[in-house]
Amino acid sequence: MNLKTIKAIGLTALFVVLSEGVFAQSGPVLLLSKKEAAAINSHLKDYKLMGKSFGKIKRTADKALEKKIEVPIPSDNGGGYTHEKHKQNYRELYNAGLAYQVTGERKYADFVEKMLLEYAKVYPGLPLHPMRKQEQNSGKLFWQGLNDCVWLVHGIQAYDLVRENISAGNRTIIERDVFRSMAAFLSESDSGKDTFNKIHNHGTWAVAGEGMTGYVLGDKDMVDRALYGSAKDKKTGFLKQIEQLFSPDGYYSEGPYYQRYALQPFMVFAEAINRNQPELKIFDYRGQVLKKAVNTVLQLTDSKGYFFPINDALKEKNFMTEELVFATNIAYENYNDPAILPVISQQNEVTVSGAGLKAAEAIQQAGKLDYIKNPMVIADGPEGKSGGLSLFRMPTKNKDEQLTAVFKYASQGMGHGHFDRLGILLYNNDKEILQDYGAARFLNVESKSGGRYLDENKTWAQQSVAHNTVIVDEESHYKGDWKAAEKQNPELQFSDISNPETLQITSAVERNAYPGVLMQRTVAMIGAETPFILDIFTLRSDKAHQYDLNFMYSGHIMETAFKYDPAVATLTPMGKTNGYEHLWKLAEGRANVGVSKFTWLNDSRFYTISTMTDANTKLFMTRLGAADPNFNLRNESGYMVRVGDRKDYTFVSVIEPHGSFDPKLESVQDPHSKVANISLLQQDASYTAVRVTFTNKETYTLLFANAATAPNTTHKLSIEGKKYEWKGNYTVIKK
Amino acid sequence: MNLKTIKAIGLTALFVVLSEGVFAQSGPVLLLSKKEAAAINSHLKDYKLMGKSFGKIKRTADKALEKKIEVPIPSDNGGGYTHEKHKQNYRELYNAGLAYQVTGERKYADFVEKMLLEYAKVYPGLPLHPMRKQEQNSGKLFWQGLNDCVWLVHGIQAYDLVRENISAGNRTIIERDVFRSMAAFLSESDSGKDTFNKIHNHGTWAVAGEGMTGYVLGDKDMVDRALYGSAKDKKTGFLKQIEQLFSPDGYYSEGPYYQRYALQPFMVFAEAINRNQPELKIFDYRGQVLKKAVNTVLQLTDSKGYFFPINDALKEKNFMTEELVFATNIAYENYNDPAILPVISQQNEVTVSGAGLKAAEAIQQAGKLDYIKNPMVIADGPEGKSGGLSLFRMPTKNKDEQLTAVFKYASQGMGHGHFDRLGILLYNNDKEILQDYGAARFLNVESKSGGRYLDENKTWAQQSVAHNTVIVDEESHYKGDWKAAEKQNPELQFSDISNPETLQITSAVERNAYPGVLMQRTVAMIGAETPFILDIFTLRSDKAHQYDLNFMYSGHIMETAFKYDPAVATLTPMGKTNGYEHLWKLAEGRANVGVSKFTWLNDSRFYTISTMTDANTKLFMTRLGAADPNFNLRNESGYMVRVGDRKDYTFVSVIEPHGSFDPKLESVQDPHSKVANISLLQQDASYTAVRVTFTNKETYTLLFANAATAPNTTHKLSIEGKKYEWKGNYTVIKK
Repeated sequence: MNLKTIKAIGLTALFVVLSEGVFAQSGPVLLLSKKEAAAINSHLKDYKLMGKSFGKIKRTADKALEKKIEVPIPSDNGGGYTHEKHKQNYRELYNAGLAYQVTGERKYADFVEKMLLEYAKVYPGLPLHPMRKQEQNSGKLFWQGLNDCVWLVHGIQAYDLVRENISAGNRTIIERDVFRSMAAFLSESDSGKDTFNKIHNHGTWAVAGEGMTGYVLGDKDMVDRALYGSAKDKKTGFLKQIEQLFSPDGYYSEGPYYQRYALQPFMVFAEAINRNQPELKIFDYRGQVLKKAVNTVLQLTDSKGYFFPINDALKEKNFMTEELVFATNIAYENYNDPAILPVISQQNEVTVSGAGLKAAEAIQQAGKLDYIKNPMVIADGPEGKSGGLSLFRMPTKNKDEQLTAVFKYASQGMGHGHFDRLGILLYNNDKEILQDYGAARFLNVESKSGGRYLDENKTWAQQSVAHNTVIVDEESHYKGDWKAAEKQNPELQFSDISNPETLQITSAVERNAYPGVLMQRTVAMIGAETPFILDIFTLRSDKAHQYDLNFMYSGHIMETAFKYDPAVATLTPMGKTNGYEHLWKLAEGRANVGVSKFTWLNDSRFYTISTMTDANTKLFMTRLGAADPNFNLRNESGYMVRVGDRKDYTFVSVIEPHGSFDPKLESVQDPHSKVANISLLQQDASYTAVRVTFTNKETYTLLFANAATAPNTTHKLSIEGKKYEWKGNYTVIKK
Repeated sequence: MNLKTIKAIGLTALFVVLSEGVFAQSGPVLLLSKKEAAAINSHLKDYKLMGKSFGKIKRTADKALEKKIEVPIPSDNGGGYTHEKHKQNYRELYNAGLAYQVTGERKYADFVEKMLLEYAKVYPGLPLHPMRKQEQNSGKLFWQGLNDCVWLVHGIQAYDLVRENISAGNRTIIERDVFRSMAAFLSESDSGKDTFNKIHNHGTWAVAGEGMTGYVLGDKDMVDRALYGSAKDKKTGFLKQIEQLFSPDGYYSEGPYYQRYALQPFMVFAEAINRNQPELKIFDYRGQVLKKAVNTVLQLTDSKGYFFPINDALKEKNFMTEELVFATNIAYENYNDPAILPVISQQNEVTVSGAGLKAAEAIQQAGKLDYIKNPMVIADGPEGKSGGLSLFRMPTKNKDEQLTAVFKYASQGMGHGHFDRLGILLYNNDKEILQDYGAARFLNVESKSGGRYLDENKTWAQQSVAHNTVIVDEESHYKGDWKAAEKQNPELQFSDISNPETLQITSAVERNAYPGVLMQRTVAMIGAETPFILDIFTLRSDKAHQYDLNFMYSGHIMETAFKYDPAVATLTPMGKTNGYEHLWKLAEGRANVGVSKFTWLNDSRFYTISTMTDANTKLFMTRLGAADPNFNLRNESGYMVRVGDRKDYTFVSVIEPHGSFDPKLESVQDPHSKVANISLLQQDASYTAVRVTFTNKETYTLLFANAATAPNTTHKLSIEGKKYEWKGNYTVIKK
């Protein structure tokens, strides 16, 4: 009996299950039990997804076993040799550990043991990484501490999987010189402890590594610090992160791109907690918010599972990534929610774990599965009171198509947030119709600023004019200062998705993006022959301003129902700063008195934005790419509706998918918009009323109280001699 | 026995099988026999492709039966109501006819009979179509005669399928007032006979309709005129069309986009001929050129079956279109070539015909199928002496990838031809790396010039600068006069694809595109770690010229290994005419003395063009879209290498795919070109020698005799004191 055993025995009753003696009998304690490993082994043929997934892991492990183990002294930046080698090492450790448990072949365990002994030789003596950056927490193996945490999350799982096969002497060495040393560095050193106690996804990776190490080493102190923060005062740590980083609806304020990344440590550590301290009921914590977090991030995707690219987001990421394979498997295991199975089926792989076993079994027994994407109103902020997002979704006439509008009135999302208050996006299945640029970055491409965020991420992608919203006086929201923006958020006025076939509606207000200007946007998706968007954007100010309603559309211009002057022989930019300097002015349109229409083709559908305009409205067709000396920007297309010198103004637009274009059958239908008229019937401090008339004489009249009102409040309005009365915030009259 | 029967009996022995009496017993005579129809019926469940395909046809027929039959008096242009209605009618006739034969249910036959009787009421009295155009042959049902021919090809098949179910009296009416009347109009009227006797795809539709009508009506005269021309002198007609319109390699001079369309009447009529006059051995005619025509058009596609968009071509067309479903099914039935089965499998439908039955059976019995795309050297011209195309194909390191280069030195292709002499295209699977704009047209989109070819098709798409070739003095080849260009074609000097893993090479000369300028391009795909293209473009002239080597690449600029001055605040066009007016000048580069490199990213691969340059070379980055007031053009990207004031000049370039970009795994490899040096060792009237050196010190030295030489000729060259000797046109030395 060594010191550790004595210590384990000394733990409270709660932790007796973690003691050395129990370990020796029961095998791994984290994500895969001995029994589950045996079950996986016996089902490799009949659970196809598991067979495939384990096959891949075993091949990686087999390849690793053929090569010489190498634990280089860390020297390189991200993408460099030692960086990539240590990443590869933790993957190989983990895969070999899994291969050992499932096959029982000791060679895999021996490999893990050997590599960990190599790490034990060098790790304690390593200084801070030579390529560390001032603004970023340093690691020892990697330039930033985050990667060291990711190493630990994988490394400790690998050790957990093979520990039973390691002699007591070597265990002592490995635990002391690798895991305790690393955990201490990441949680207690000057370099690590700030991150460890941060309410931030980097902190989640840190506590996950520490906490899982605690379970494997039977160290209650480590576990407690992971759960409750360094001071164990519950002001930081994992539970606090769960409370603070997600809204009650499971939204993560940085947006789905970062939520994807953060979910892995959240779900993996929760799984380890649940297996070791089931009494904590971690999966029920805060109203099952982890379930909601998984569900919400999966719903925040287009029809192919690509995340809506709000804030700094790369468009190439979808829910097939490894992070979300862990998340969906663990969510399915613990919540038994069959709604998630179609995603697991699309992911087309499972984790080799207890959760993966259960998921693979369920998929094997399920038939063809479609993941249902629902309309949702998602609150942001730890209290659910910091604005949010609305997802409107309706099928079009073509049953395979789903029209999705994203209306964003969420909080800033910290340094990765964009100045896109009250912005919208529009998708038809996976086609971006009104798009968000996402982040300006070519991840890891050395020729593009070393693969980091490009300068144009700040000068274009984060600016308001890069989004489908209103820009006042050509200045971005909050003057582009994210710290100022972080303090304020839009407010939801009302929303209703209770009759999703007929109407989905949200109205939100932003009071602080521009001093003295109140912005209110009301967006409705209305069920018609083909569903359309009614978009009402009101600006109120005591002073006169220029208001630009911008649409970054995706597709090819088909026609305009207004005259314009094209720039055929010289192009100049739209402005000098705040993103305007990046837009070439392709044409300036002369707006109609009445409605001005702009039609484009995207894939097999036509889309028209019809906007109420007068003779003073200016229209612009733009293209991204000016002031781009390094060719960093994609050359996307914009359409802008501008009014100048106004105090109060309301933009009323209809965004309408219509017709079809089938080059295979050479058939084209309805290439022209069917909107005949748009009128603003009323607009004052209390009420807004608009009417859309289609060419078939159908009209839709939307009336609403601007501010939130109780559901039972009766509203009365008299317009053009006609009296309207309704209960609740809004009504729509179709005739 | 009516008049027709008497006439039938009066035919020669050859045509006895076509007589009324035989018809009554044997059912349809064209593409589907009674026996085949019965076999289809009994295999609807087990031949999945047939079940699916027939299901679709029956649903269309069922839907048609529910509606009132309507045969409107023709009045509308393409896309208009009567136009679309008559198109719909022939489809419904055909589908109902098929449904009748396969199910035996008379309601389908009755529908066909009724609709044809409606046509019989109006057709004979119809005048020429009111919307006919001067330059185009007029129809009666449609604005152009071509569509009437297509109606007849479908209508006569429908009648053939149900004729057995129609009373003698109604047959007389239908045959006289629909089919004879229409056939006479299309083959004998002033409006029709020119097209009927044209060696052109419109003529093929005409003779196919006439000839098939002849078989069904038992009219030898009609059949003979279809086969041998109006005068039956074999100077025109179907056989002459087969001789003239295809090269011996089965290439159709208008290019694959039009070849796709032309193949339907060729194959359908050939099938009808073979079933009625097997002694003509039509499928063996001219060395089985119809087999080659099908094979060649299928090979002229990217990895997803999209046709290389040379000449006026829309990029949306692939080999899944209906025309090619007929073609592949009939080709498989008659040539038994299993190589074609993967295409039928990808088409995922079959025709309901004897050919379709055989194809569906074969697919049902086959395993997983991959269509093999080969390197090919395809001769153009009826004699195979009018230049041609080379297709180079090699797998890359990633085994699922095939790099394909298309080198075009074919004839003009008549009025739809582009001025792209010695142009190249480059594909990686279905990704366009160096692209052809194709046609400037939004087919059938009324808002875009009524769906016809746009003005920009002439001002941009057909111009030389829209292609990857050399433009002399900013003037298009043949000054953009297709009739002048039609008289001349490039000449193949040599080509070799006999060792496809190592090297695929072609050299061709164009002597007439510019008076006094000889153009020779030699293109080689060379097997290396990743295959690369070596591109040598030589210009020779007694007078000084400006030479522009243009590349219309597809993707995002990653880096350049030369300095450039970007146009950040004003864009101006590259020129005033010949397509240059449509290109914005984004940047002007200062070429290196040595090699200038230009790198872009397309999907998951980097590509670099490295060109030998000197201090006087100018480099331009361009974007399409200037002088485009109606936003008709796509905004594609160009890179141009320019030398001015030269008599003889040789551009030597390496086009090199390299590295990878995997946003899912966040990994990037080899983003930089590996070309270290390019040198032109020798260039005179007789010989060319170039050397490429890579960063790993590997060198490739290509030496060739410029003009075609006999395979046994020995060539000797002394360069830098070193002696080279080789047999045949060229040699490559790798070190």
